[in-house]
Amino acid sequence: MHVSHAHTPSRLQLNPQGRLRHFLTTEGLSREQLTEILDFAESFLGPDGSIHNQPLLAGRTVMNLFFEASTRTLTTFAVAAKRLGADVLNIDIAKSSNSKGETLRDMLWNLEAMTADIFVVRHPHSGAPHFIASQVTPKVAIINAGDGRHAHPTQGMLDMLTIRRHAGDFTKLTVAIIGDIKHSRVARSEIHALQTLGAKEIRIIAPRTLQPRDYQELGVKVYERLEEGLDGADVVIALRVQNERMESPLLASPEEFYALYGLTPEKLRRAAPNALVMHPGPINRGVEIASEVADGPQSLILKQVNYGIAVRMAVLTLAMQGQLTTRGDA
Amino acid sequence: MHVSHAHTPSRLQLNPQGRLRHFLTTEGLSREQLTEILDFAESFLGPDGSIHNQPLLAGRTVMNLFFEASTRTLTTFAVAAKRLGADVLNIDIAKSSNSKGETLRDMLWNLEAMTADIFVVRHPHSGAPHFIASQVTPKVAIINAGDGRHAHPTQGMLDMLTIRRHAGDFTKLTVAIIGDIKHSRVARSEIHALQTLGAKEIRIIAPRTLQPRDYQELGVKVYERLEEGLDGADVVIALRVQNERMESPLLASPEEFYALYGLTPEKLRRAAPNALVMHPGPINRGVEIASEVADGPQSLILKQVNYGIAVRMAVLTLAMQGQLTTRGDA
Amino acid sequence: MHVSHAHTPSRLQLNPQGRLRHFLTTEGLSREQLTEILDFAESFLGPDGSIHNQPLLAGRTVMNLFFEASTRTLTTFAVAAKRLGADVLNIDIAKSSNSKGETLRDMLWNLEAMTADIFVVRHPHSGAPHFIASQVTPKVAIINAGDGRHAHPTQGMLDMLTIRRHAGDFTKLTVAIIGDIKHSRVARSEIHALQTLGAKEIRIIAPRTLQPRDYQELGVKVYERLEEGLDGADVVIALRVQNERMESPLLASPEEFYALYGLTPEKLRRAAPNALVMHPGPINRGVEIASEVADGPQSLILKQVNYGIAVRMAVLTLAMQGQLTTRGDA
Repeated sequence: MHVSHAHTPSRLQLNPQGRLRHFLTTEGLSREQLTEILDFAESFLGPDGSIHNQPLLAGRTVMNLFFEASTRTLTTFAVAAKRLGADVLNIDIAKSSNSKGETLRDMLWNLEAMTADIFVVRHPHSGAPHFIASQVTPKVAIINAGDGRHAHPTQGMLDMLTIRRHAGDFTKLTVAIIGDIKHSRVARSEIHALQTLGAKEIRIIAPRTLQPRDYQELGVKVYERLEEGLDGADVVIALRVQNERMESPLLASPEEFYALYGLTPEKLRRAAPNALVMHPGPINRGVEIASEVADGPQSLILKQVNYGIAVRMAVLTLAMQGQLTTRGDA
Repeated sequence: MHVSHAHTPSRLQLNPQGRLRHFLTTEGLSREQLTEILDFAESFLGPDGSIHNQPLLAGRTVMNLFFEASTRTLTTFAVAAKRLGADVLNIDIAKSSNSKGETLRDMLWNLEAMTADIFVVRHPHSGAPHFIASQVTPKVAIINAGDGRHAHPTQGMLDMLTIRRHAGDFTKLTVAIIGDIKHSRVARSEIHALQTLGAKEIRIIAPRTLQPRDYQELGVKVYERLEEGLDGADVVIALRVQNERMESPLLASPEEFYALYGLTPEKLRRAAPNALVMHPGPINRGVEIASEVADGPQSLILKQVNYGIAVRMAVLTLAMQGQLTTRGDA
Repeated sequence: MHVSHAHTPSRLQLNPQGRLRHFLTTEGLSREQLTEILDFAESFLGPDGSIHNQPLLAGRTVMNLFFEASTRTLTTFAVAAKRLGADVLNIDIAKSSNSKGETLRDMLWNLEAMTADIFVVRHPHSGAPHFIASQVTPKVAIINAGDGRHAHPTQGMLDMLTIRRHAGDFTKLTVAIIGDIKHSRVARSEIHALQTLGAKEIRIIAPRTLQPRDYQELGVKVYERLEEGLDGADVVIALRVQNERMESPLLASPEEFYALYGLTPEKLRRAAPNALVMHPGPINRGVEIASEVADGPQSLILKQVNYGIAVRMAVLTLAMQGQLTTRGDA
């Protein structure tokens, strides 16, 4: 164990036995760790999208702390936790004691004292879940449900499960991610997971203004032209154009984006035959993706949502188990 | 099976075996089908309003989709689903991805992919639950919790259960419905159910402006004067005056309505001795009903609410069972 | 049994066998009754803040009716009820039929008819839970979660549990309560419980403007100077400065309050060695308490929150049991 690394997110989310006790990022986790999550998630999945319930979190209290609104992700975590038999509480942050002048730290300490076992945290600031796990409530398992531009690791892992189930061996796959990579926590979590799982090639396709500066560190190939980036790709992931997260007018207009980067049936033909089409949702039809593609036979968009329940069940359970071991050690 | 009728709500809500798989309207269901709902609902009812819990929906996920606010109906469905052991999620439509520009169709597809089994839908537009069941998510059991002016079938059925328990044989009963029939989805669901269950006579009592145009099709007798309409009635149902649903000033004032149509002890004496008094709630005391009547010995208003839990338990379970059979066939 | 006292809160909350059937106030309960609550609460507590779940309310429906916002108290009751296996519904009062002109009485009758077993009521008006229990829905067990300036009995009892676990025998203890006693429902519930449990001495420390007029009836000693009031105290309870509840500018400023009444490490030295420090939360750091004290070794602030879950589990269960006995008698 590298004690000197204990402050990094990847170490922070592991207990002394190297098992998950929080789930903050896909970055720095080993191939074995990611594969364990995928295998465990798959164990909950039946054919045709059914989910096997298992009371692995019976008697546990999961609190959803969403500092940024998201009915969609909130609902998937609530469904996953309930299918594991947990008690689930959505904490209304806007109405909470914050408004009475209580500090974030005091609010979290109080929720912990109310016997919370797991906090599912979404926050507009990058690093907030990490801060909570390291500085505030380390004995509560923290699951990152999206923090700023940093990470959205359960989305990253459900995308990996989708790819593994429908395309198989990562080492043979070229994966192309299209859109606003620069501001996308989804893309970062996907790229880190794809690297670790051994994807043959990872491409990002974006206008210059939306390309991340650290793409060399990320180990990806950068394309400005969609047609070139799609060439022969086995998996094509279109990101949502998130106007709300951009601070300046980096995009001319939705129409122009669609003309250049919108995934149409015609452009998709540049990819490998039967290339998988994915999108983290919610989709902007006619902006980053054409309806014919979103609803077409290559689209796995709704499968992603479905697998997301299983992935969240796996992550919630694994982090709880690792956290309990840690508490036992303490 | 009349394939040519497959597009009508009454066929749409049945599976090929003729069993409920959605519950959209009381219109077009057979006497046997309505009686099955009533019998099943009654099986949950103990004396004095207690309800026998049964885990018939254990492991199922019920999502409440209320596009129109209603704490009251929302709560009854939540209680009913929980008493059946289901996981219940209230989807906050206002905060949902709708606000991110997602289409209704995409939102519903996503919720279905999150392993929803049942959508309980309230919508301001007539036909919305029908549209969802036919065009969007046919594999999710859709329960209509009130759509526009069209139908409120669980309210209709809980009223039938109330009448059957307290007045017995429908074929001997004259039922009078008072108020804004024209805009009332409750009245429509009641009238269709009463017809099918063989009520001796159905009367509607309303000012001309609030009488429905299709009363002949509905097979009801129309009265403008309350005293005449009440004469000898065995069951008297006062509707809520819903100013919020009226588009033009069809009523002079609440005071005038009360003078002409308010159900007072004096006017109630025109009905049969011990006539049952019902109201779908919430009541406007001193508008459509006097407090002495609402709280009097003939009033079944709170019994209706209580039976509503049992009726919703029955409908949720039957639709789920019919839906599962259909899924198995698919 | 003193029938003539049946209208007082203390009698109202007991059934004919003298057992709790509501929990409205600590005032007037006997030492045996308070001790039973504490003992039962303690039975749920494991070491280190864990809680033993017990399905004592399985199949029961608990409705939280918060007419005054409080995420914190709402969450503790929801956690407690879920840990007892109850179905829990938070009724959104603001959105409820109140807005449709329904009376409070009709709303409560309707919720009762929806098979509610317990109402957890918070209300800005003193006496509202008492009114509901006596005049509206006596067959629903009413738990007071804070009413106006009157009482906050579960807070009072969790404070008693904290004192008993950490300081032992009440008859040897001097307890000092600091702050806005006049407007504090927490202080009233504490004082009544401390009296009944036989505390050696109860002191209140407050500026003249915030001293209650009835302190002689309450049987407490009043101090205007913090240093004098703290002298030799075994338990020190700092109250939250609640600007929102004060009707006039009774406090000069938070800074001035802190200078005179803020619990600092220096001032705390006037109390007994290892005196317990408590606060009902949420805390205003630097107003009524210094961070060094709130986070220091004498502070039991988070233990209070933790014990609060156990106390609420005890009170919910005891009131339900007493209510059922009453219903059986009726």
